[in-house]
Parts: sequence; structure tokens; C-alpha cells
Amino acid sequence: MAPGVSNEKKTDDEQSSKFPFASFLSYFRSSVLLLPVSCHRRFSSWLDDTELPENFIHLCNPHLEKMKEDILYHFALGTGTHDFPALFGDVKFVCVGGSPSRMKSFIAYIAEELGLASPGGDYPNICAGTDRYAMYKVGPVLSVSHGMGIPSISIMLHELIKLLHHAKCSNITIIRIGTSGGIGLEPGSVVITRQSVDATFKPQFEQVILGKTVIRSTNLDEQLARELMQCSKEINQFNTVIGNTMCTLDFYEGQGRLDGAICLYNEEEKLQYLKEAYDSGVRNIEMESSVFAAMCNLSGVKGAVVCVTLLNRLEGDQISSSHDVLVEYQQRPQKLVGYFIKKSLGKV
Amino acid sequence: MAPGVSNEKKTDDEQSSKFPFASFLSYFRSSVLLLPVSCHRRFSSWLDDTELPENFIHLCNPHLEKMKEDILYHFALGTGTHDFPALFGDVKFVCVGGSPSRMKSFIAYIAEELGLASPGGDYPNICAGTDRYAMYKVGPVLSVSHGMGIPSISIMLHELIKLLHHAKCSNITIIRIGTSGGIGLEPGSVVITRQSVDATFKPQFEQVILGKTVIRSTNLDEQLARELMQCSKEINQFNTVIGNTMCTLDFYEGQGRLDGAICLYNEEEKLQYLKEAYDSGVRNIEMESSVFAAMCNLSGVKGAVVCVTLLNRLEGDQISSSHDVLVEYQQRPQKLVGYFIKKSLGKV
Repeated sequence: MAPGVSNEKKTDDEQSSKFPFASFLSYFRSSVLLLPVSCHRRFSSWLDDTELPENFIHLCNPHLEKMKEDILYHFALGTGTHDFPALFGDVKFVCVGGSPSRMKSFIAYIAEELGLASPGGDYPNICAGTDRYAMYKVGPVLSVSHGMGIPSISIMLHELIKLLHHAKCSNITIIRIGTSGGIGLEPGSVVITRQSVDATFKPQFEQVILGKTVIRSTNLDEQLARELMQCSKEINQFNTVIGNTMCTLDFYEGQGRLDGAICLYNEEEKLQYLKEAYDSGVRNIEMESSVFAAMCNLSGVKGAVVCVTLLNRLEGDQISSSHDVLVEYQQRPQKLVGYFIKKSLGKV
Repeated sequence: MAPGVSNEKKTDDEQSSKFPFASFLSYFRSSVLLLPVSCHRRFSSWLDDTELPENFIHLCNPHLEKMKEDILYHFALGTGTHDFPALFGDVKFVCVGGSPSRMKSFIAYIAEELGLASPGGDYPNICAGTDRYAMYKVGPVLSVSHGMGIPSISIMLHELIKLLHHAKCSNITIIRIGTSGGIGLEPGSVVITRQSVDATFKPQFEQVILGKTVIRSTNLDEQLARELMQCSKEINQFNTVIGNTMCTLDFYEGQGRLDGAICLYNEEEKLQYLKEAYDSGVRNIEMESSVFAAMCNLSGVKGAVVCVTLLNRLEGDQISSSHDVLVEYQQRPQKLVGYFIKKSLGKV
């Protein structure tokens, strides 16, 4: 173990009090407008009582103001080569999901819904210079893929939040539209996440920083979740619930599946674990929501997670529905969030 | 926290002794040939002294033998729809890397090197039914993308190991060819991983199973690492070292970068951490090697990690080299591993 590295786990507040912040604080004092509300509250004892523009994207990083150019490597975009305010300044809704092709079909769908469809139906990939992520835009909607798992969505969110900040965006809502395994729900049901919980059902995300573990909150915007639930009632096409979402680092052993290459437990132990999850309020399991919630919180952005369940994990592990059925299931979060965006823009 | 869920961390050996293994053991006894050498050693006290075919791919999962069909969902392949022995039975080398386009260019490169190039230079994506991963094959070489981060490569490896098992493959070598951040090395240097270490520099991977953390070894095959180093000496085109590789769950805060959307430490603290990493033997940082090593160990497969360093993290955080320089860097692990495969097949 490195000198000074311990297994103690702290919250960001406790952690920050242990850093040698003398020089760091001078950054904060000189660039107070960089701080999001949540960061502002966190460091308020060191800060003047400055009014913050609450609806702008803010960064919890005083170092960025000193950089002449910011290269968003995994987007193949940079402030030295791209005019971010011109390209992205009008964005109000960002929808993110694992699969690049699903995020492309979402942009075509929302373009039709908003009456902004291109004649040829072609939406160029803004991140065509890389195959790490795909990004599409129509009007005020940005659609971005994030791959699978916490590390993959985390890289994307760091660069997305910086992109929105550089573009001077305001009043942003970010919604993850994804797939998941359900617990105790009919397959095809949609879950709007109340809290993202870890594998021990705690609403927290463990971020390792310089070898130390910091605990971050994974609550999501309650009002936004209620608005999305109301939208589902209005379109009335599929079962939708608000529930907790368990976020794991693994699809097989981490979610209690019996069908991975490695499995050292039996069916009874698996079912006991999934039932404990259900009893604690978990209604679905996926692999990105915890860091999504934590980063939305820290950056002062309204966030929601809307996932369809492809199977009921109390009944099995393999995703064996037909291709057509799965495609229809995957359209449900798109329909719900598409309706929400139309309604927010007064187009319903 | 769930009933029975604790924060205690155990190895697989300690963990297995706590599971109610009575019924589980009967699986092992009835399907002993499923066990890899490593699993066989682990459970040897319960097993007869059966001879194992050491060079075959084995599965640490007795449940799979009871399944009539196995759907590898993220590959869009299944034993009920595809003839795995016919499609993959001759595979001896599997090369994996993050980017789908890099793995496509690798298959074209190795095809040329082995004299197996297709006339049109076209190599179809075997996983064309999904955009989660891409897979290409030529002769005895399979090339598969794995996305970014431990969860993403973990899903791929579970399905890859099952694929190789269903195909009855033997004498398999799996090599990850990737990119990384270097520590104290000239950019463009190639690191062959001795051990993958975590963010506290320990050679271990923490796998969460049913809410409990299990510790797994991340050693890699020493003989294979030495053979790869010898190949680098023979081609003599770029600096190559054997060193430890730090595997993190995050690209920004997790690797001590100052240029993410969130950063609550200063440059001095960052450099201190990276120097401690260097002093402990770490020469590069990436995001997949620990679970790669752990799963190779458990499945009895020879594995190696060969990554080029895109920058020296002691000098900065942004990847700002020109596109052409980065493309040339990324070809270096391909050249080294291509030469190794040719040599292994007696074609050098």
C-alpha cells in the first residue's frame, strides 16, 4: 500500500478537510463562478457569499480555468478546434444510453416528434473522429452513447459536462435511457429510478481518488422523476414504476447470474440475494446509474434514469426474448422521454 | 445493508468455504472435467484425483452444463443458432482491445502478416447483430473489442471464455493490446504487464459477488511476458519494458488527472501519488488489466497485457499529440503481438 494510502472511506466533505487546501482555496476564491451550487455549498466556509448563476453548468474543478485549450479526447473535440457555444449553446436536453445505434435511432425519433426531421433522415455523428462514443444533435436535444459500465459512462460524463460548460449551456436536463434486468416486474416494464443503490443496497457511489475511497450521494431529482411518471400515465402504453435501481460493476457474478464463465454460488443463494434486493426497494439492476447520479449531483444538473426491464431476474438469467420484442422494449424509454421533451417544449 | 451482507473481504478460497456447498459439490463431482486447473486446485479437497485436460478452456461454473442453449447476448451469438466448433474451433490466439476500429485494423494487419489476407481486404464483423462488441477472425486469430473499463471487458470475457469452451478450443493465448498513460516513460513506449495492481498498488482485483467482496489474484503469465519482451528485442523498433500496470475504475479522478469536470486535489498531491506509483513499480495506467488477469487465472488461460503509453503522466494529463503520432503509437502493440503470433506459428 502506498504511504499515506488507507482503506478509510470518507465523504467528499470529510475528504476535502484532509487535503492541504491552502493553495487550492486560492483557486476557489479567484474563480468562484466556476463552482456549482453543490460545490458552493460544500466549500461555502471558504467562500465569499457570492451569488451563483444557478442554472448554468458549473465545474467542480478550479484547474480548468488555467488551461488555454481543453481537448475532450474521447469525443475527438476540443476548444481549440471547435466552437462549442455555436455548436452546442442551444442544448437543453441530453439523452444518454449505452448503445451507439440506439442513440442514433433516438435522435431520428425525437427529430420527427419535434418536427425537426432532416429531409434525408441523416444525422451526422458529431464524434466521427473516434469510435469511443457517438453523439447526435437536433435542435435542443443532444443524444450521446456511453458504452457499458461505470468507468465508460464516467469518462463520457466528465467530457460531456465540460462540453456543456464550455458551450455556456443553461437549464440542462440529462436523462439516461437504458436497458436493465427487472426484479419482480413483468418484462418490458419501465423503471424510473428514485435512488441508485450499490450491491449492498446503499444509496452511495464509491469514487477512488488518489488511492483513497470517497463516498458520494446517488439521489436523483425527485421532481423530475415525478414529471416523468406523469408523462408515462399520459401516454399510457406500458407499465411504469418509480423504484430503486441497483448499479453493479459486473453483469454476471455481480448481478447473481448463474450463466457466466465463473459462478461459485447456487440458485438458492442467488434468489435469496435478489429477494433481499427487492425487499429493500430495488426494482431493476443496471451498470451506470450510480456514477451518473453522483456526477449530476456534484455538477448541479437535473438528472433522471429511465430503463426498460428486458427480463424478470426472479424467473431467469438469459435474455431470450425475440429480437423484435427486445427492439420494442428498448423503444419504451425513448417514447417516454420523447414525450417528456415535447411536453417541456409546449409541443404536446 | 442486506441481511448477511458484510464489508469483510475474502479470497475465493475463503469465500467458498462459507458457501453452503453441499448441493453445489455434487455438481463439481459430476462434472469435474468442467473445472480449470485453477478451479481444480481450489476445490481439490472435494474432488477425486481426476486427470484434467490442462490445455482446454474450462469453466468455473457447474450450472452451464445443465443449460440446453447458451445465448451470448452481448455477442449476438448462441449455441442454438451458431455452430461454435465449426466457427471457432481452430482459434489459438485471441487479441482484445478497447476500440472496434483498432481491432478491425489488427485483423487486416495480422492477415497480411500470416499470408491469409482476403482478396478484397474485407473482414466481416462476426458480432454484426449487436453494436456492443465487434469480433473478427482470420485463421487461428480472433480479434475482439471490449470497450472501456473493467465492467465492459468483464462482460466480453465471460462470453468469450464460454465461446472458446463451447468451441472446444485448446492451447489458447489471450493478449490485450491497448493504450495507456505512462509514468516516467517516453511517450510511445510499450509496457508488457508483470502484475496488474489496484489504485493502492496491490496486485489484486476486488470482485463483488452477491454483495460480498472477493479478492482475486492479478498475476499474469511470466513466461509469456518474457517471450513478448524477446520479440520486442528482435523487431527493435520502439522502447519496451516489463512493469506493473495500475488498473483504475476512472480516467480522471481515479488516475489523478487535473482536467476532468471534477477535481478536488492539487498538482502537488497528484504528482506525489504518481511518484508513489512509480516507486512501487507501476509504469503505466489503464482500465481493464486487473479483471483480465483475474479471469485468465481462474479459467486457466495464458494471458498478457501489452499497452502503448500515449503520454508521460509526470509531464501532463491531456493527450495532445497529433492524430498521426497517436495512430503510429497504437500500431506498436499490434506489431509486437503480430510478430509474436508469427513466431509462435513458425512463420518468422
